[in-house]
Amino acid sequence: MSRTRIHNLTVSLDGFATGEPQSAEAPFGHAGQRLHEWMFATRFWTLGGDPGGAADGGGSEGVDHAFAQRHSVGFGAEIMGANKFGPPGWQDDPDWRGWWGPNPPFHTPTFVLTHHPRPPMEMEGGTTFHFLEATPADALATARAAAGGQDVRIGGGPTVVRDFLAADLVDHMHLVQVPIVLGRGVRLWDGLEALEDAYDIEAVSAPSGVTHLTFTRRAVSST
Amino acid sequence: MSRTRIHNLTVSLDGFATGEPQSAEAPFGHAGQRLHEWMFATRFWTLGGDPGGAADGGGSEGVDHAFAQRHSVGFGAEIMGANKFGPPGWQDDPDWRGWWGPNPPFHTPTFVLTHHPRPPMEMEGGTTFHFLEATPADALATARAAAGGQDVRIGGGPTVVRDFLAADLVDHMHLVQVPIVLGRGVRLWDGLEALEDAYDIEAVSAPSGVTHLTFTRRAVSST
Ligand SMILES: NC(=O)c1ccc[n+]([C@@H]2O[C@H](COP(=O)([O-])OP(=O)(O)OC[C@H]3O[C@@H](n4cnc5c(N)ncnc54)[C@H](OP(=O)(O)O)[C@@H]3O)[C@@H](O)[C@H]2O)c1
Ligand SMILES: NC(=O)c1ccc[n+]([C@@H]2O[C@H](COP(=O)([O-])OP(=O)(O)OC[C@H]3O[C@@H](n4cnc5c(N)ncnc54)[C@H](OP(=O)(O)O)[C@@H]3O)[C@@H](O)[C@H]2O)c1
Repeated sequence: MSRTRIHNLTVSLDGFATGEPQSAEAPFGHAGQRLHEWMFATRFWTLGGDPGGAADGGGSEGVDHAFAQRHSVGFGAEIMGANKFGPPGWQDDPDWRGWWGPNPPFHTPTFVLTHHPRPPMEMEGGTTFHFLEATPADALATARAAAGGQDVRIGGGPTVVRDFLAADLVDHMHLVQVPIVLGRGVRLWDGLEALEDAYDIEAVSAPSGVTHLTFTRRAVSST
Repeated sequence: MSRTRIHNLTVSLDGFATGEPQSAEAPFGHAGQRLHEWMFATRFWTLGGDPGGAADGGGSEGVDHAFAQRHSVGFGAEIMGANKFGPPGWQDDPDWRGWWGPNPPFHTPTFVLTHHPRPPMEMEGGTTFHFLEATPADALATARAAAGGQDVRIGGGPTVVRDFLAADLVDHMHLVQVPIVLGRGVRLWDGLEALEDAYDIEAVSAPSGVTHLTFTRRAVSST
């Protein structure tokens, strides 16, 4: 059964998944790289965040890696928000093809939710970007149909994750809490009161200082 | 050296330390008892949250208990906010003497910050409530002078904790994160951007599902 999953979504203690302002130079605003240092230290990351990555720069293989690499296992499609795909204004640049170079680490159909759709872009390595204006449920149905029976990843950012959680479309979420207080940016938790009612939740702290939280649906949806 | 400490401060995933509305029937509003179930299961709690507690109702003695009981060890005074001392409107009730009955679990001078001060109240067991209108720094100096060389506890609620953290007056903070999303109430983290710069932070998840976070000042203040 194809499930809808979120992985490696990293938030500050105060619940921000990005700082501000987002820009081409600072995609996470004033948060800089602080949300993802835990991930950069993993073997998952030195392999390019990508099971097809060639370079082997070492990296930790403990609990941070074990969680991180699940991002790459078993997916047939990704859905992401417009603000993950590019910095503010990318919609006005006909040549923008995402942050990730010619061979993005998705290797599947990848659906970008945007109110400014454009024709699909076929990249190297199996990634094709499709641009979609649709409700979360309709976008998920489209991505599911393209996923060949594998799972669909909701790749972020926080606005899109929140919308999919609020629409009750997420089967599993892996969240990473970093012990910093960002103070401003985009919040994950707004509008999700009592989210815990639908999930079994586990927490495990890592020697790196982050805490991994997993949310697994009590009654797995069959859509 | 007398330090300023916070213990057992419990927050939801979205950073609320109480729900709303606060009332005599529901001191934590819609949060009910959900923030403190982890504590009720500890031996600390069955002893009355109090080293002088007589009843022994069992309770866990693992990591939750180890952290919880620190609340009672080494303190010579407490500072709390008006909304911890009583429900909205207690200031208009001349007979209100706090939530805790004739023998409150503080056993030290206890300073209630309020814009409606009244004469001190001597209780059984060594607790005397003093009512104070003062800045955090001045209140701390007063409590310190009364603490006989022992530590001063900032007992909450979140508004008072936030004010003392913002004024850089806290040497150690033990925080407990419960995996629920409250959505509304009083936030702890507002106005504390980059709090992590001043602290060494550790996180440890407990089998009960909560995560204990400790904040220990890098350069301990000598005030
Ligand atoms: N912390 C993490 O782990 C993590 C993970 C991923 C990303 N991020 C960061 O998060 C930030 C982006 O997050 P964000 O919350 O600002 O934005 P986002 O979720 O990436 O994108 C939101 C935008 O997508 C478009 N959109 C969303 N739903 C739509 C729908 N149903 N139909 C059509 N368009 C829709 C809208 O843009 P338009 O109206 O402009 O088209 C909306 O403003 C970036 O800084 C990124 O680097 C962090
Ligand atoms: N989650 C936890 O672990 C935990 C711990 C403790 C308490 N709580 C809960 O937190 C809630 C109370 O927190 P809260 O944030 O609403 O309020 P609070 O911090 O208890 O009290 C804030 C109030 O104290 C007075 N005050 C604060 N600073 C002052 C100063 N410098 N000078 C004079 N007066 C001052 C003001 O009241 P006035 O202007 O009205 O005098 C202010 O509104 C309660 O529901 C309580 O049960 C939770």
